[in-house]
Amino acid sequence: MPVRHYVTARIIDGRALGAIIEKGLTNEAEAIEKRGRAPHLVVVIVGDDAASHVYVRNKQRACERIGIKSTRHDLPSTSNPSDLIDLVDNLNKDEGVDGILVQSPLPDGFDEISITEMIDPEKDVDGFHPVNLGRIVTGKVDGLLPCTPSAVIRMLESTGERLAGKKALVVGRSRIVGMPSALLLAQKGVDATVTISHSQSQDLRRLCLDSDIIVAAVGRPGMIKSDWVKKDAIVIDVGINRVEVDGASRLVGDVEKEASERASWVTPVPGGVGPMTIAMLMRNTIKAASDRI
Amino acid sequence: MPVRHYVTARIIDGRALGAIIEKGLTNEAEAIEKRGRAPHLVVVIVGDDAASHVYVRNKQRACERIGIKSTRHDLPSTSNPSDLIDLVDNLNKDEGVDGILVQSPLPDGFDEISITEMIDPEKDVDGFHPVNLGRIVTGKVDGLLPCTPSAVIRMLESTGERLAGKKALVVGRSRIVGMPSALLLAQKGVDATVTISHSQSQDLRRLCLDSDIIVAAVGRPGMIKSDWVKKDAIVIDVGINRVEVDGASRLVGDVEKEASERASWVTPVPGGVGPMTIAMLMRNTIKAASDRI
Repeated sequence: MPVRHYVTARIIDGRALGAIIEKGLTNEAEAIEKRGRAPHLVVVIVGDDAASHVYVRNKQRACERIGIKSTRHDLPSTSNPSDLIDLVDNLNKDEGVDGILVQSPLPDGFDEISITEMIDPEKDVDGFHPVNLGRIVTGKVDGLLPCTPSAVIRMLESTGERLAGKKALVVGRSRIVGMPSALLLAQKGVDATVTISHSQSQDLRRLCLDSDIIVAAVGRPGMIKSDWVKKDAIVIDVGINRVEVDGASRLVGDVEKEASERASWVTPVPGGVGPMTIAMLMRNTIKAASDRI
Repeated sequence: MPVRHYVTARIIDGRALGAIIEKGLTNEAEAIEKRGRAPHLVVVIVGDDAASHVYVRNKQRACERIGIKSTRHDLPSTSNPSDLIDLVDNLNKDEGVDGILVQSPLPDGFDEISITEMIDPEKDVDGFHPVNLGRIVTGKVDGLLPCTPSAVIRMLESTGERLAGKKALVVGRSRIVGMPSALLLAQKGVDATVTISHSQSQDLRRLCLDSDIIVAAVGRPGMIKSDWVKKDAIVIDVGINRVEVDGASRLVGDVEKEASERASWVTPVPGGVGPMTIAMLMRNTIKAASDRI
């Protein structure tokens, strides 16, 4: 076997970073509780999507670690949108609730965007309400930011690399990840030159090779090839895709693993953006609570 | 004098396009009036900024042409923010008002962004309220869109060129023009690959030369040099800058005029984005009114 000479990228460890952030939040949660009561997150889940139940459990465990009270409402998959609307309405009015999270995806017949618009923006800990997204457009970034995009920024900042003036490519234009990540990257203070690409973009390979930072948020395993990554680029892989390999199921990102032979920094999948997204959800919950208690 | 051989770019005539749009809106205004009353725009101006008075007059003239009732409130420059807040509050409640526009800039001591957030989003004909900007992030583009960004899209579409997959560069990241223009360009249906550049971007010349579409929204006369424009690019010049030339005052854009020797399409300044922005304001007013009357 030939000897291969390469430098392997440093890992942006989402679990370790998330743990540091959770530590700080634990202190904040304690201080809030001393002022009156513990911060309180309510998670609503409709139906029995297996993955959703795993995500919700992980979020509730994070609450436990930090000292956030969490309550879970299960609506059966046979329930009507009006049941969910009534529940959200009550949670909006409930002075004892700081954060409301309606787990995605909702069953057919539910309009996710209109449910999101119903949540009190001050309890919108997912950061998906248009008013919270719109504030980013206006340059206001001290509110409830969408969790994955703010995880992306935190992970980039954790490298200590200068981001100002770097060319960042966001692959994917979803309302939840791609679009808000692009907005955050272009903000004053981060100051990247940001390109938004998507299914209609031409020559994604060239776009990648031109970029100092790649944020991959497509949800297609390995769609970004390792040799599309510019030498010393930073790669943030938001994709979490379940694939079968030799009969076993495992999680892979949107970027081929071998990208780490060219990049200066990469996020692992799993253990990268995922745990940091939960940390950012916890941060939003603490923020919402500290504005209310 | 040597003979010069070049093809001059076609002009995207904002006055002509705006007139066509206004014609359609005139019919809509008439239909709305038949249902009850004429659409009604209220313009608020604080202080005596000379340029603001010109802009407001132009907007009111457009209302007259179309059949929109317009009312103007002048607050003296000595008024307090609370006077403006009270006025906006009353206009929000007034069932006879469809659109509210608070002319920018406001005097020192007024917080423009918080005033914008106070306006009922359904009367926010400027399209600057976070909830209206945020809906663009979520992919909803049938609401009250910010006027200049939607003018940019309309002008690009008027060329009949295929925009999908084209590389569009937005120069400038303001909440009013740059950021929302980038969001609209990246939407499904427009499908450009969009880059947002700003004062911290490196090598703007190269970014421009790599782009099929340039949207210049910086407010610095001629800051984009004609030889930065790729052959056959489309140039949308949002800048309207007053300069002194040989003792006379005239308006110029952010892009050097000679760009038309390389571009396939250009917008003139004046007579480009300016009149189209007013047409989009009129469209928003008709839209707001037709949702209410």
